[in-house]
Amino acid sequence: MSQHIVVIGGVALGPKAACRFKRLEPESTVTMIDQTAMISYGGCGIPYYVSGDVSDASELCTTSFHMVRDPKFFKEVKGVDVRILTKATRIDRENKCVEVENVQTGEKETISYDKLVIATGASPRRLGLPGEDLKGVNYVANPGDATRIREAISKGEVGNAVIIGAGFIGLEMAEAFADMWGVETSVVEIMDQIMPRLVSPTLATMGRKHMEENGVSFYFGETVKAIEGEDGVVKRVITSERVLDADAVIISAGVVPNSDIAKEAGLAVHERGGVYVDEFMRTNDPDIYAGGDCCIVPNLVTGKDAFLPLGSMANRQGRIIGSNLAGGSAKFDGVVGSFVVKLFETSMAGTGLSLDSAKAAGFDAMSVLLIQLDRAHFYPTKQLMTLEMVVDKPTRRVLGVQGFGSSGDAMVGRINAVAAILKSSPTIDDVSNMELAYSPPFAAAMDILNSLANLADNALAGINRGVGPAGFKELWDNRDKDACFFLDCREKGDADPFVERNPEFWHNVPQGEIYDRLDEIPEDRPIVLVCNTGARSYEAQIMLDAKGYKDVTNIHGGMAALKKYGIDL
Amino acid sequence: MSQHIVVIGGVALGPKAACRFKRLEPESTVTMIDQTAMISYGGCGIPYYVSGDVSDASELCTTSFHMVRDPKFFKEVKGVDVRILTKATRIDRENKCVEVENVQTGEKETISYDKLVIATGASPRRLGLPGEDLKGVNYVANPGDATRIREAISKGEVGNAVIIGAGFIGLEMAEAFADMWGVETSVVEIMDQIMPRLVSPTLATMGRKHMEENGVSFYFGETVKAIEGEDGVVKRVITSERVLDADAVIISAGVVPNSDIAKEAGLAVHERGGVYVDEFMRTNDPDIYAGGDCCIVPNLVTGKDAFLPLGSMANRQGRIIGSNLAGGSAKFDGVVGSFVVKLFETSMAGTGLSLDSAKAAGFDAMSVLLIQLDRAHFYPTKQLMTLEMVVDKPTRRVLGVQGFGSSGDAMVGRINAVAAILKSSPTIDDVSNMELAYSPPFAAAMDILNSLANLADNALAGINRGVGPAGFKELWDNRDKDACFFLDCREKGDADPFVERNPEFWHNVPQGEIYDRLDEIPEDRPIVLVCNTGARSYEAQIMLDAKGYKDVTNIHGGMAALKKYGIDL
Repeated sequence: MSQHIVVIGGVALGPKAACRFKRLEPESTVTMIDQTAMISYGGCGIPYYVSGDVSDASELCTTSFHMVRDPKFFKEVKGVDVRILTKATRIDRENKCVEVENVQTGEKETISYDKLVIATGASPRRLGLPGEDLKGVNYVANPGDATRIREAISKGEVGNAVIIGAGFIGLEMAEAFADMWGVETSVVEIMDQIMPRLVSPTLATMGRKHMEENGVSFYFGETVKAIEGEDGVVKRVITSERVLDADAVIISAGVVPNSDIAKEAGLAVHERGGVYVDEFMRTNDPDIYAGGDCCIVPNLVTGKDAFLPLGSMANRQGRIIGSNLAGGSAKFDGVVGSFVVKLFETSMAGTGLSLDSAKAAGFDAMSVLLIQLDRAHFYPTKQLMTLEMVVDKPTRRVLGVQGFGSSGDAMVGRINAVAAILKSSPTIDDVSNMELAYSPPFAAAMDILNSLANLADNALAGINRGVGPAGFKELWDNRDKDACFFLDCREKGDADPFVERNPEFWHNVPQGEIYDRLDEIPEDRPIVLVCNTGARSYEAQIMLDAKGYKDVTNIHGGMAALKKYGIDL
Repeated sequence: MSQHIVVIGGVALGPKAACRFKRLEPESTVTMIDQTAMISYGGCGIPYYVSGDVSDASELCTTSFHMVRDPKFFKEVKGVDVRILTKATRIDRENKCVEVENVQTGEKETISYDKLVIATGASPRRLGLPGEDLKGVNYVANPGDATRIREAISKGEVGNAVIIGAGFIGLEMAEAFADMWGVETSVVEIMDQIMPRLVSPTLATMGRKHMEENGVSFYFGETVKAIEGEDGVVKRVITSERVLDADAVIISAGVVPNSDIAKEAGLAVHERGGVYVDEFMRTNDPDIYAGGDCCIVPNLVTGKDAFLPLGSMANRQGRIIGSNLAGGSAKFDGVVGSFVVKLFETSMAGTGLSLDSAKAAGFDAMSVLLIQLDRAHFYPTKQLMTLEMVVDKPTRRVLGVQGFGSSGDAMVGRINAVAAILKSSPTIDDVSNMELAYSPPFAAAMDILNSLANLADNALAGINRGVGPAGFKELWDNRDKDACFFLDCREKGDADPFVERNPEFWHNVPQGEIYDRLDEIPEDRPIVLVCNTGARSYEAQIMLDAKGYKDVTNIHGGMAALKKYGIDL
């Protein structure tokens, strides 16, 4: 039985659902409408076009075999009818049709459907600021934005850029401006860190430091009050604290789901926007599906509603909708929240909940920080990777893992391995025993992910009691009044420069000599143990515990983490 | 309650178990004995020392903080007593003691234990060949072997090397000889492919081809009859088919578990060697644990016994034994069989079962091959990755995934994500929906792993019916008699050179033009569809199916896979 499908929206989920459906039911017809003339583009690639990594904007709109994904392509190659510059104005569920309007001519029309797909995506959040419409103020939403921004840069019109918002897109755009074009780039963020809620303040600080070293300036905890221009062209950004010159402004303050048309049709929509769908990606009208950036999906870690606008979600959900339109029963059970962002020579990635998000979701959570080599310590391409694991204390459940490091693929691989099991409520032991592929060029015999779980295990057992670089900073900043005894338990040669620079506070007893030199370690003062990464200081902590020391703190991540965090001793 | 633990074997699992235990019970004592003077070394690093990637053999015996892991280190840093050159000759379970012998003096002694750990490892399989003891014939078992081999090479004594066995170690050693030192290197393998049983013949061919391009010769299906020398020094290897000159011979024909001492003590041992342990890594004597290369563990995919000697296993099992010695109840449930091996600029990795292994284990299995970019097609560092998924047809269960590609970390990451879920009997749908971290520099919007599962789904549904490069070769080799119609459905410019070279057999109709040019495609001949990677030809297959064509085969992996496989058209 042949049917007619209408898809509203032609960027990511829409085309995927349409094409999948047509492959399963070649005899049926699909009409995909989009209010713009740009369809099926890789919006996630915009920062890489602006940076010059991608040389031609058309690459964002082509297939991997270099065909332009335009209406002709969809018709000939995919068998899908596309109508561009056609805006859906109303869904008439009773009569099963969509009212549309030609955005150029204003001509109205009604298109009937047997089943409908809402793939309206999301729009950049507008801040309602004075000056938001000045020339040079851009969002990062479509190839048009990309072309405008790159054209201005390449003409030499941009000496200073201000990015509003330190989330994924903001950071990617900051890199694009600063790296390839040497533009003076500032990021203004209302929260006090990059990637708020997604990673811990510690990881965020490491990422921020690396970006600062590459020429990006950050202003945290500041709100933008206005954008000012001259002759209609942006000139500066006024924040709560300062004035920043700006020839280009990027507003990357998140996106909001385009779900008004669904709401007006009486479909179930979240109070802050976003269409509700069931596990088959169906709305509360069984003939209407929705997916991608305009939807709300369950977060499988918290069990709560999630809004996770990502091109990868749209593609996977699109396939599911395509299958179900053709009578299938494919399921999308929800999201765990995996992400990665490249930050110059490093990257930040994660899955599941950060410590802050876990606490906000009501978990009795803790986290541990591990810094370790990503492959055999004797293998020449080894790099340090920093991972943080978030754990629910009462149940030992792993709630999330986030990381920062310079071998992006290697780190993403670890994050993905955790992402793969996260919806099954894994415990620390599942990660401790995870069987990752081993060979010295790719992993250590005890992989960093296994070690991370082991650290969490030891921390929960109370035998490895420590704090990360943020905790160290607090202890060190108060070294005058807290009377802490900072004990560097590395070998003498490693510790000596630090002892020389801080003779009053910094002490050295190599871990292997602790039992012979116990008299140098005061029993009546808090001991703070430091080594290269936190591994030897953990052994030292056990030795001191065994000798009855009562207040011993291990610095997780050791000197390596302190350095990445920006603490100079 | 303080206890005394004896550990037999000081390489990988032994030290890990000993140290973990001591951290949990600092008041107890551990005696670790080893019959050699070399303990706690990274045997997996030997090929990289031979190649020169690792400059100093001592790096294989040091910690990541450059301390030599010798008996003094274990005593001072770990609190573990080590007795080297001490061979355990008998376990007296009744009296709970180990009889030992000093291998230099012959002095005998008895060491009592409260609990015992058998960590005797495995030994290289000897082939019983004439000439196996000639100078220049080496196994790859310990740093002594490594030093001997590299010394001979660096002195210029090795012009020709023959490797016996094309498993992990054989291939790693072949690379070491050929890459850094330009030695004429041959690999002799009794089976007909590299990495037999671990990867499909197709992936194996891709890996072999890459190694051949880097100067390694392979002789498959040949057995070694003898090794010959002059004046006690190796000169040549005699196989069933040829004589190979050899100044160095590496025997890498697998390893056998060192479980005789356990068997003699009446512990449960596999008929072909290997100590049986329960999920707590305990033998059938509750006071005796065993782990690492001397053990048999359950394969969680097949449910059968497995022998998987890997340094990573030893480390994880060692920690579990250490925990349980201290009263814990940590579990090791089994293995899924994850691996990776670097082959010059590429690598081969996998987890779970290959198609052959799956069939041998009784599954009604099939596999699909996908070649796709490992990140966004517009991102400059993109590379092709080839993945194969093995599926149990009746249940849709994923039994394994193997891969070959040049971005090692990226591929290992995908393999690890599957490895992470493999013991939970995942279905195709679990991988299709797997939420991998997405950003253009690290993944495509539809990740290659999701696509791989989608391909398996479409193959099982019968809508994507195809064969890989091996199947294509058969069809192409019989092009004269089978009357197949080879239809290249890429754009004209891509297909033209092939049509010109094979005008009689190679035809071109771009996929988007198929419906307009149906008359060019015969209905009464088998159609073989080819495109770049198998994606467009899948669309073409659907189009032809819809028009009633009865015998259409899609070439999975397309021209990209044919090229990697070594088929020149």
